Amino acid sequence: MSERYDIAIVGSGPAGLSAALNAKIRNKKFIIFGNNNLSNKLAKAPKVNNYLGFYGLTGEGIKERFQEHIKAMDIAITEERINNIYAMGEYFALMANDKTFEAKSIILATGIEYTKPIEGEEKYLGRGVGYCATCDAPLYKGKTVTIIGYNKEAEAEANYVSELAGEIYYIPMYKDKYNLRDNIKLIEDKPKEIIGENKVNKLILKDSEILTDAVFILKDSISPGQLVPGLKIEENHIAVDRLMKTNLPGCFAAGDCVGRPYQYIKSAGEGNIAALSAVQYLDSINKNK
Amino acid sequence: MSERYDIAIVGSGPAGLSAALNAKIRNKKFIIFGNNNLSNKLAKAPKVNNYLGFYGLTGEGIKERFQEHIKAMDIAITEERINNIYAMGEYFALMANDKTFEAKSIILATGIEYTKPIEGEEKYLGRGVGYCATCDAPLYKGKTVTIIGYNKEAEAEANYVSELAGEIYYIPMYKDKYNLRDNIKLIEDKPKEIIGENKVNKLILKDSEILTDAVFILKDSISPGQLVPGLKIEENHIAVDRLMKTNLPGCFAAGDCVGRPYQYIKSAGEGNIAALSAVQYLDSINKNK
Repeated sequence: MSERYDIAIVGSGPAGLSAALNAKIRNKKFIIFGNNNLSNKLAKAPKVNNYLGFYGLTGEGIKERFQEHIKAMDIAITEERINNIYAMGEYFALMANDKTFEAKSIILATGIEYTKPIEGEEKYLGRGVGYCATCDAPLYKGKTVTIIGYNKEAEAEANYVSELAGEIYYIPMYKDKYNLRDNIKLIEDKPKEIIGENKVNKLILKDSEILTDAVFILKDSISPGQLVPGLKIEENHIAVDRLMKTNLPGCFAAGDCVGRPYQYIKSAGEGNIAALSAVQYLDSINKNK
Repeated sequence: MSERYDIAIVGSGPAGLSAALNAKIRNKKFIIFGNNNLSNKLAKAPKVNNYLGFYGLTGEGIKERFQEHIKAMDIAITEERINNIYAMGEYFALMANDKTFEAKSIILATGIEYTKPIEGEEKYLGRGVGYCATCDAPLYKGKTVTIIGYNKEAEAEANYVSELAGEIYYIPMYKDKYNLRDNIKLIEDKPKEIIGENKVNKLILKDSEILTDAVFILKDSISPGQLVPGLKIEENHIAVDRLMKTNLPGCFAAGDCVGRPYQYIKSAGEGNIAALSAVQYLDSINKNK
């Protein structure tokens, strides 16, 4: 059996980090998933003047303070991408690409996806469109797979899928040096529309078209409703009360994913509340045993 | 006519300061009431490790960062104690001891009063017990007045009342050098119970008793229900929604006064939300004109 955490935090932006500080202080066995760069959005922010206590820092500057803080408190970020979370009754099962983690409570701090869906993306979701290439790759053995990558991590996923797929295309939505295997065809063009009949059969780009059996769209964050089946969503955000409780017992949420305003200090404040609510939840389930 | 602010913020702890940063950035005409020491609670806090971005600072250290931040943004705190706020329809009237301020919207960030009420305090409120000595002093011309002061600012109030009252007692709830006029009798004893018939007539202390017509209890913060008539209170806190709206249009609240957990970053996050909600409210009333 895999070890079971008290709290699993998904996301390493201000909400997730703030939750982690409090989980640590409250001496809980916890794990935080994200990446050591914390948050792409944070790193790219221009000057931020409304994070009380910091004046005139850039997003990069604030990011460094956050990194120093968690390092000083011996908090390490687990660089795994959580693709699905299932409420199992006594615990939650968190699925990373090839691993499963277990936790008694979870805090979702996944941020908000600013990228607009591609036309046809929602229509064909589950019918050739997916958000986790490695998860679904076995379904496309020998077939044609297209990966639209929003970040460098998507390259590793493309390389993995290239071992199984018959033909594979990679469309980067960022500029960089791409570290891709030789059998992957790089397409530098802008996706416009996914079309098909019952299932996906074509991706139309600005200047070209690809005949394909699958389109995987690898974004920074997955929509929370997709991530946690059964989670209540309202107007594109996770529904929470003032204590950051969602509709699922033991599942809390904080930060941009629960609603506007999209502000660092708001997210950090909510992460604090979510962690203390999770601690209270853990006390209550231990008491009932 | 006194000048009318867009936003009046009551309280200079983390919630009030965070609200002020956002009011400033959004270019609103605002005023923040409090004191330059920010918050007694903040100054007294031991090490704080869960304010994301600061590690190992004391409350005093964090207070200095906050002071530097507001100074860098040219935000000055108005050192007036707001004793009552009335919703006048188009605006709010904020009553300080001898001044009135007007604002189109208000943000309550008054903190939470930890001191337990004295026995009899609630029973005789409005019948000899009050929270604003200078407001009610004219009612006690020539009579005996007792002031229970929780902070140094109460001394100035006692000095003012001593010009009107017949006899005046001052009971400090803190240790310091007291700056009191000669006609004020200092009582260093612990208040136990306020008693009377129809109105207050006696204060019983641990080792003594005082015959008195009025007892003014001057705490760091007034209870919000008393401060703003009509404000909805739930379980001792101001009722707010996730956007920090109270039941009164144009009145927002943030920080300890809206509920637990009592944490700096939670308060600062809520101050941010409250200010942006106030900005949205101001836009909406301007649009309707």
